[in-house]
Amino acid sequence: MTPKDLPFSRTEYDRRIAKTRAAMVAAGLDLIFVTDPSNQAWLTGYDGWSFYVHQGVLLGLEGDPIWWGRYMDSVGANRTCWMAPSHVHGYGDEYVQSTERHPMQDLAGHIKALGAEGKRIGVEMENYYYSAKAHAVLVEELPGATFCDATALVNWQRLVKSGEEISFIRKAARITDKVIHTALERAEPGLRKNDLVAEIYHAGIKGVDDIWGDYPAIVPLTPSGLDATAAHLTWNGAPMKSGEATFFELSGCYRRYHAPLSRTIFLGSPPAEMLAAEAAQLEGIAAGLEAAKTGNRTCDIANAFMDVLAKHGIERSGRMGYPIGLSYPPDWGERTASIRTEDTTVLEPGMTFHFMPALWMDSWGLETTETILITEDGAAEPLCSVDRKLFVKP
Amino acid sequence: MTPKDLPFSRTEYDRRIAKTRAAMVAAGLDLIFVTDPSNQAWLTGYDGWSFYVHQGVLLGLEGDPIWWGRYMDSVGANRTCWMAPSHVHGYGDEYVQSTERHPMQDLAGHIKALGAEGKRIGVEMENYYYSAKAHAVLVEELPGATFCDATALVNWQRLVKSGEEISFIRKAARITDKVIHTALERAEPGLRKNDLVAEIYHAGIKGVDDIWGDYPAIVPLTPSGLDATAAHLTWNGAPMKSGEATFFELSGCYRRYHAPLSRTIFLGSPPAEMLAAEAAQLEGIAAGLEAAKTGNRTCDIANAFMDVLAKHGIERSGRMGYPIGLSYPPDWGERTASIRTEDTTVLEPGMTFHFMPALWMDSWGLETTETILITEDGAAEPLCSVDRKLFVKP
Repeated sequence: MTPKDLPFSRTEYDRRIAKTRAAMVAAGLDLIFVTDPSNQAWLTGYDGWSFYVHQGVLLGLEGDPIWWGRYMDSVGANRTCWMAPSHVHGYGDEYVQSTERHPMQDLAGHIKALGAEGKRIGVEMENYYYSAKAHAVLVEELPGATFCDATALVNWQRLVKSGEEISFIRKAARITDKVIHTALERAEPGLRKNDLVAEIYHAGIKGVDDIWGDYPAIVPLTPSGLDATAAHLTWNGAPMKSGEATFFELSGCYRRYHAPLSRTIFLGSPPAEMLAAEAAQLEGIAAGLEAAKTGNRTCDIANAFMDVLAKHGIERSGRMGYPIGLSYPPDWGERTASIRTEDTTVLEPGMTFHFMPALWMDSWGLETTETILITEDGAAEPLCSVDRKLFVKP
Repeated sequence: MTPKDLPFSRTEYDRRIAKTRAAMVAAGLDLIFVTDPSNQAWLTGYDGWSFYVHQGVLLGLEGDPIWWGRYMDSVGANRTCWMAPSHVHGYGDEYVQSTERHPMQDLAGHIKALGAEGKRIGVEMENYYYSAKAHAVLVEELPGATFCDATALVNWQRLVKSGEEISFIRKAARITDKVIHTALERAEPGLRKNDLVAEIYHAGIKGVDDIWGDYPAIVPLTPSGLDATAAHLTWNGAPMKSGEATFFELSGCYRRYHAPLSRTIFLGSPPAEMLAAEAAQLEGIAAGLEAAKTGNRTCDIANAFMDVLAKHGIERSGRMGYPIGLSYPPDWGERTASIRTEDTTVLEPGMTFHFMPALWMDSWGLETTETILITEDGAAEPLCSVDRKLFVKP
């Protein structure tokens, strides 16, 4: 086998395992089965587009973790995980999308082999890739085990980033700057949206110098006009038009790490109410960044932004951001803390958020956002460098 | 509201609803809750990158279906679904990634409003986007309901494509031809893999003439050398090298419809064993296409291929293909029938498969595949038009 090109040092993986085990002990868990692809990658290095079949990581309180998945993907696991091949297990293709067998029957055998069939086992109940059926089969196969909901247990350990991780996010941010500039420069009336998105992909995957582009966990979001009043519509082949706003919600990606950013462009002369909203939004973002400091809470960011908007007569509720870093589709958020009024997570240096105080109005959308790093002291540091404003092309 | 640009005729949606209801009656179901994004789109037209939050379609035995999801995405639902706004329901952001509330509590209220809280309700137990937690909450909220596993109930209705759907898949195939040719033409020693993938994305999203490119449900798979012995590794920034094989597993996408294809290129002089495997593979594929005719079964395709390979002294087991069509990440397969020895699905005109008899050996991989249409009579029709062979660049 050729030497592995692991993204992180062994010390970094050791740190992650130790941190996760401390959380397991606090939660009274003997073993966790981790299905979130981001958590799998964070703990073991595993990287592959194989999360559409059942796979995961078993981590007990001692020894190296075990990667478990489809046999054909165990080959990829041995090429991307830091553990020895003895800690990579594959199940046969007869388990894949079968109505007679389920991969969790195979997993149960491995859990028994670990002597853990009577233990307290944490599973990620609320995860895209841990289906209702998977849980039902695992519970049936291991009647002596006590299953506990360990949703987001690993995700929470990822909230404060290491220096190595922050350097990856900074690299992703350089790609983000490039793709947002590409979109802003190319956008013009008559350009088909898919042709614009083709340029965005090209710029992002080429990357910047030796910072090669990985695939972002969300596709480019680039809606115009009324489509921009909805948050998550994807592109089509219609040409861009004068008199419409288009928002770009994009992220560069470096070795699975993200730095999302949104900017909005208006082709033509924006209406007065949009310019007024822009002024309020920018003032609100500045207030939010000021509030995003160590010792404050996530809700302080949301409240600082909303207070400014209220002053300008704009009502904005809902979630205004989330932690970002390592991720796989379908979401680049980490799904732990939220920037919203009811969330009281205390900010610490090394946390990274997509601060996302977008405005979706009745007839247009205005997205201006920042990926921010919480620092030792002072306001948060925006990691991208695109001008913060509504862009206008007359 | 502007007129909707629905991908299909209302007749087509009516056909789908009627077909699904017949399956519901056969399964003794009063109501189904459909979470698979492809099934949602197939039934209602809903299209958006919002499947990372809980959403779905409620379909009873009468009346129009109901799309249900996050409030901000209900705006997109009203722009993409064929139903009236009265059949689109949104839940508030306070349910999103909350540890106190769960969206299924809101859904349960809608099911009660339909008078279905005591009925037999089908849910997709084995689906990426129906979590173990979601099921647990829904069961708890509706103690009088009888929950049944309706996994793949809608997917099976999608197996035989309509004429409208086949025309979309043919369009996707034209894009596929373009992206595979792009990859084959650009590949050369020294080219960074991410730079190649940038060209692949660019070609695929631009599309062909007025066939604009949508995002495929799987990212470009382009592994080289030892990485190609694993099935699902994604790219990095390393340059392509002489003396290595690279396989391209790619699909064009037109309005969410796919036509995947794989071809392999060797830079330099391929080893004799790879050329021997190529000859066996091509002969086996021809035999498989011949066997892929109306009235035969999926296993007949697999057996025809394997018999040829066995004659050449190559052992190949496992799954060799799956139905394709409408899809969302993380998979472009439909997850119903499989081309494998133990699957006895009878082939009918209008079925479309990715016939995927790839070979992953100890030190290289050889992928040569076809998207095929089962026809009224005779062998299956390959929908793409790239030469079927191992490509070699000396």
